[in-house]
Amino acid sequence: MSQPFLDIPAELTPQLAPVQAMLEEGLTRVEQRFDEHLASDLLPVERLCGHIERYRGKMLRPSLVMLCGLACGDTVIYDEHVTLAAVCEMVHMATLVHDDVLDEAENRRRGRTVNHLYGNEAAVILGDYLIAAAYHLCTTVDSLDAARLIGEVSMTLCGGELLQLHYRDDFSLDEPTYFAILERKTAALIGVSCRLGAQLAGAEEGTQAALETFGRRLGVAFQIQDDLIDLTGSEAAAGKSVGKDLEKGKLTLPVLLHLGAIEPEERGGFLDRLGKAGRGEAGAREVAAGLRDDLVESGAVEAARAKANGLVGEARGWLAGLAETPAREMLDLMAAAVVGREF
Amino acid sequence: MSQPFLDIPAELTPQLAPVQAMLEEGLTRVEQRFDEHLASDLLPVERLCGHIERYRGKMLRPSLVMLCGLACGDTVIYDEHVTLAAVCEMVHMATLVHDDVLDEAENRRRGRTVNHLYGNEAAVILGDYLIAAAYHLCTTVDSLDAARLIGEVSMTLCGGELLQLHYRDDFSLDEPTYFAILERKTAALIGVSCRLGAQLAGAEEGTQAALETFGRRLGVAFQIQDDLIDLTGSEAAAGKSVGKDLEKGKLTLPVLLHLGAIEPEERGGFLDRLGKAGRGEAGAREVAAGLRDDLVESGAVEAARAKANGLVGEARGWLAGLAETPAREMLDLMAAAVVGREF
Repeated sequence: MSQPFLDIPAELTPQLAPVQAMLEEGLTRVEQRFDEHLASDLLPVERLCGHIERYRGKMLRPSLVMLCGLACGDTVIYDEHVTLAAVCEMVHMATLVHDDVLDEAENRRRGRTVNHLYGNEAAVILGDYLIAAAYHLCTTVDSLDAARLIGEVSMTLCGGELLQLHYRDDFSLDEPTYFAILERKTAALIGVSCRLGAQLAGAEEGTQAALETFGRRLGVAFQIQDDLIDLTGSEAAAGKSVGKDLEKGKLTLPVLLHLGAIEPEERGGFLDRLGKAGRGEAGAREVAAGLRDDLVESGAVEAARAKANGLVGEARGWLAGLAETPAREMLDLMAAAVVGREF
Repeated sequence: MSQPFLDIPAELTPQLAPVQAMLEEGLTRVEQRFDEHLASDLLPVERLCGHIERYRGKMLRPSLVMLCGLACGDTVIYDEHVTLAAVCEMVHMATLVHDDVLDEAENRRRGRTVNHLYGNEAAVILGDYLIAAAYHLCTTVDSLDAARLIGEVSMTLCGGELLQLHYRDDFSLDEPTYFAILERKTAALIGVSCRLGAQLAGAEEGTQAALETFGRRLGVAFQIQDDLIDLTGSEAAAGKSVGKDLEKGKLTLPVLLHLGAIEPEERGGFLDRLGKAGRGEAGAREVAAGLRDDLVESGAVEAARAKANGLVGEARGWLAGLAETPAREMLDLMAAAVVGREF
């Protein structure tokens, strides 16, 4: 079952209740479309696809496809929106499955990963199956433009993954490259989700582009928030292990901001400790804890939080050209929720 | 550089020379389209894509797309055929890259594999990049039908991979399941290559279906021939290590036919030896050599060869409805070449 991070108490915002109900019903249809399209007469395929149902999380991308359609004048959630929403989630899911292989991750969303349970081979092929299913599902909508966008954004996404891999364990990674990776790996698909929703609703190019930018900014903020949750969040709230990034010696935004703020002669020492934490040697956890304290004390954590807030503000600005509708307000609240969330 | 397995001496078949020249020129255009579409401004992407250029082999799928177009009445090779030919090759290439990860292969086509040179992570993402590029390239042709076929066949392909993985090291695999895997993993894409060529040329559904079946039968024969080359071929002629299947304890058609032909009480002993060969224990190579001798002596190798020849005959039969053109004759010769080749 999915767990949308945007759950507005109906009594607080009565004018949003109808659109929220529509969105909830839409998400149920997305889940159905998702499962139906993965169904196979091959038992090994069924078993693996059954497993990833529990990967479903915040359904950010499907929610954006559908809300952007509504924000562009649609009065109901059409079937095509449901389909493309499922497509965007499927592309995302494929990247999660392959990411877990690359990261040798054992857990995801309170469950075991496919690679951990069934091996890397099965996880590689399952990811391929998901991406193939996403493309195929996409062609059931009568829009070559949509298929083109999905193909293109998938290339962008893989480019981001390769760039990230290239800089793994490379402490020369700088802030612009960090953002270049984020833009490709995370923001692009979230932006395309918004554009697709608008495009299907017949919005003009300017509106499509504005909503795509809204989604991209939101996507970057989302990833920064993920980094912050890993750094300072609690395992109970996050529903997954935290503190992993430092233990992997990963260069996240707080680390990059810290490195930019300290004296040049201190960099070497900090990076040595990060390397030590990342190699998982004896005492690595204590080293990681020390690094975290440094990041908080130097203000790097606060600076990263400010960056995420700034991006969310920018994102919300891109909604200004839309008519004032409950759907637009929902998008606005979602943007705010991205940096407010603890999971 | 590619090495098409069909190279007809021009003096022998003067009437085929023009279509062969057209095909060669077409393949050059396919290679260009392929490389152009993978081009990226990201250096790590460029480097990896540059590496797989040397994976190019027989260009079977692109040749079929283009020849089927010509056999259905086209008089030149149109740009759309070149594009879809490149798409089919790209899908195929993606599966090769991921297959090498699954098989932990070190060599392919006289060179090192991506996983061996750059690691499994890079190979997983490169395969994803190739498949994304294939879908994106596909949408540059104004045909949702083509995009749908490519998406669908990719799902089929992954289903075949998962089925194969499910039966790995499982000696209960029987002949029908072996063919079910082959149909999905190899034959489906070759069949779709033929259908796409015919479809783009405006052929009617009956002709498209006949050519798809031609391709599917050819695909199965092609894979059986691959198994035979691995079993009885020479490394020099094949251009790759041979004898690998037995050393991996893989159940190929000759093995399955052998198991079907021997007395039930002999099965256990044979499978024990196959398991021993597959586990790479001391003396495994000698065990594999003994198994090979058994397969030859029992007639299983000959029976597999007969099966491949029968499939090629069936394939050629599906060409009967086409007008008698040099392109049709080329398809016919290609079919014959599939079982004649040693590499």
